[in-house]
Amino acid sequence: MSDTYAQRAARLDAGDELGKHREKFALDDTVYLDGNSLGALPAHVPGRMADVIAREWGELRIRSWDESGWWTAPERIGDRIAPLVGAAEGQIVVGDSTSVNVFKAVVAAARLADGGRDEILVDATTFPTDGYIAESAARMTGHRIVPVTPAELPGAVTDRTALALVNHVDFRTGRLHDLPGLTAVLHEAGALAVWDLCHSAGALPVGLDAHGVDLAVGCTYKYLNGGPGAPAYLYVAERHQAAFDSPLPGWNSHRDPFGMTPGYAAADGALRGRVGTPDILSTLALEAALDVWDGVRIEDVRAKSLALTDFFLECVRAYAPEGRVASVTPEAHAERGSQVALRCAEAPEVMAELIRRGVVGDLRRPDVLRFGFTPLYVSFADAERAARVLAEVLTEVPAGGATPGADTPTA
Amino acid sequence: MSDTYAQRAARLDAGDELGKHREKFALDDTVYLDGNSLGALPAHVPGRMADVIAREWGELRIRSWDESGWWTAPERIGDRIAPLVGAAEGQIVVGDSTSVNVFKAVVAAARLADGGRDEILVDATTFPTDGYIAESAARMTGHRIVPVTPAELPGAVTDRTALALVNHVDFRTGRLHDLPGLTAVLHEAGALAVWDLCHSAGALPVGLDAHGVDLAVGCTYKYLNGGPGAPAYLYVAERHQAAFDSPLPGWNSHRDPFGMTPGYAAADGALRGRVGTPDILSTLALEAALDVWDGVRIEDVRAKSLALTDFFLECVRAYAPEGRVASVTPEAHAERGSQVALRCAEAPEVMAELIRRGVVGDLRRPDVLRFGFTPLYVSFADAERAARVLAEVLTEVPAGGATPGADTPTA
Repeated sequence: MSDTYAQRAARLDAGDELGKHREKFALDDTVYLDGNSLGALPAHVPGRMADVIAREWGELRIRSWDESGWWTAPERIGDRIAPLVGAAEGQIVVGDSTSVNVFKAVVAAARLADGGRDEILVDATTFPTDGYIAESAARMTGHRIVPVTPAELPGAVTDRTALALVNHVDFRTGRLHDLPGLTAVLHEAGALAVWDLCHSAGALPVGLDAHGVDLAVGCTYKYLNGGPGAPAYLYVAERHQAAFDSPLPGWNSHRDPFGMTPGYAAADGALRGRVGTPDILSTLALEAALDVWDGVRIEDVRAKSLALTDFFLECVRAYAPEGRVASVTPEAHAERGSQVALRCAEAPEVMAELIRRGVVGDLRRPDVLRFGFTPLYVSFADAERAARVLAEVLTEVPAGGATPGADTPTA
Repeated sequence: MSDTYAQRAARLDAGDELGKHREKFALDDTVYLDGNSLGALPAHVPGRMADVIAREWGELRIRSWDESGWWTAPERIGDRIAPLVGAAEGQIVVGDSTSVNVFKAVVAAARLADGGRDEILVDATTFPTDGYIAESAARMTGHRIVPVTPAELPGAVTDRTALALVNHVDFRTGRLHDLPGLTAVLHEAGALAVWDLCHSAGALPVGLDAHGVDLAVGCTYKYLNGGPGAPAYLYVAERHQAAFDSPLPGWNSHRDPFGMTPGYAAADGALRGRVGTPDILSTLALEAALDVWDGVRIEDVRAKSLALTDFFLECVRAYAPEGRVASVTPEAHAERGSQVALRCAEAPEVMAELIRRGVVGDLRRPDVLRFGFTPLYVSFADAERAARVLAEVLTEVPAGGATPGADTPTA
């Protein structure tokens, strides 16, 4: 049985057009299934950053703001992310954390909405920071938060709904939500759609423009491999840019930042989403990391992602001791992101042991084992090995006793 | 005459105890007087960052959040900045841009203030982003902005004043404001003092704790040499931490971030000022850069700073053609930061030509030449050469015709 799956993995890898991209990354013999938390290092980034630090900062110093293109990096890198999420140029800027961008997006959307609308629907299953920040935004703009699951959302939208903040893919279960459908439901009711793309960008087509999304945010350190805590991004659909009213109107969003005038006048376009001086080292590591996408079609990434997660689930079903793990990730492709989440009563010990044996996923308390599949560098052989080692560990870890451990920090 | 000043410079450098720190920086034969915009590269930072990128990110990957101390970097680095600004441990966290930290500080101070107080005084001479962000904070908390110069502030404080946001050193003129005195005036009236330390931290003693400052923000890429756009910091005096109510309560500020619960519960202490996942590359470059302060007393830095700016002003007076430049930086030591600003009708052409001749300062429109003096790596010989080259350029650039040029981005 084991041979059969291993042989199938070998055949699948042999026929995988994306497999050649694996060599672009610094990898070892670990099976790295935590790219949905921190993407692996693209192998050329250290060289690029050595030049940024030693020459651009060390030699050119202040001249690099112009001569090395530092000043325009947020919008330039935004335009490189744009095709990966289905956005035309001029609608995305990079900078700040996801949390800060959620604040900009929710406040701005609340201000864009009709004045009489006083409710903000927030994905009740969201990664927590979105909910915390939305609550603060609601408090500061005089709105009320209504927590709803994405499934409940269509029934909860009313003429009081200003906007909804929804995750494209659930960080815990890996469930993919219906971005086109929910966006349409919101628009029919006159409300705005704000999407969090942290767990979808770089793993599957998003189609921001095609589906008429109003605003969106996302991080760049998961499937985009931008580096630990790499800057997030903000998408503001072109039709909203003229009225986009940022709660964080820092000098980088000014029409004439070097005029340094006391009066604020917002820049045109996506630049309006900038705030302060960008963190250049983290920002330029992200820019370099995006080179791995040259010549890659996101539709091909999606096809491999589904094939990988299908295959992993099949191997788990075949290998794992009966009744010890249960997938909470949807079987239906239309409802699945690029991770597999397995509920397991002994999740903390099991994940700690998996990591010791070179299969790196992560834990979401109390009982979820997460395995992220990054199609550019994860192979079918990785998927087979992960399932096989998981089965070995489950056989050795007795059922029943869960203890804390193996948290990883970046959701 | 030139020999005389050059000889004096040589004597001053020979007797300068801080001169030995210059070798810690990557410098060339440029006279770099723009460290008040972007500090020079500490020479050991490239090696440290190569390890962060290749090993911590590339090899340890997600494990580095724990094993390489990434997760706790914001408070750990805050504690390293603390002694430089006169703060005890546990009151500073690093992260986000200065603009974002101004927003946190002003909103939090407005919430800390008595409910009946509806006015926020803002330094009318401030670096613009502080004013833009304070205006947004006021709008979102129901306060009214009252712009006042620091000199006018004592007369403007009333029982309606919730707080004042003031710059310790003016970015344009280099004027040092009276932090102890103005803080005391505010406190006497029952208002809070929020200080922006961008142009003072690392150049002179600040004494946050000693003078009872309530909240403060600052950047780290000027006199702290943290790198382009390095993360800023937020100081929350210990007595205010329990009531500190952040407008950006991201998951990094949660009491149990890995619980990932929908309800927000703020962490204790300065951690409450954190927001989202920190930009690790920029953050750890800052941490490494702070090594240059080992064994350095900020009082010695201040003494050299004043000696350097005194000497530069003296050389300018001796060398420069009559009537072409006028210092807008105060003569009195108690009113001077660590830069010299010269008004010059032909400032754009003059600065562009200075830079071509290897003397790097910057321009603040329309007519201010800025020269920043970073005592750890600027010598008296640099000051003499800068004044001499300035005089040469002034002799060659005809009086009268100003054209645009030579903006540098980071105030």
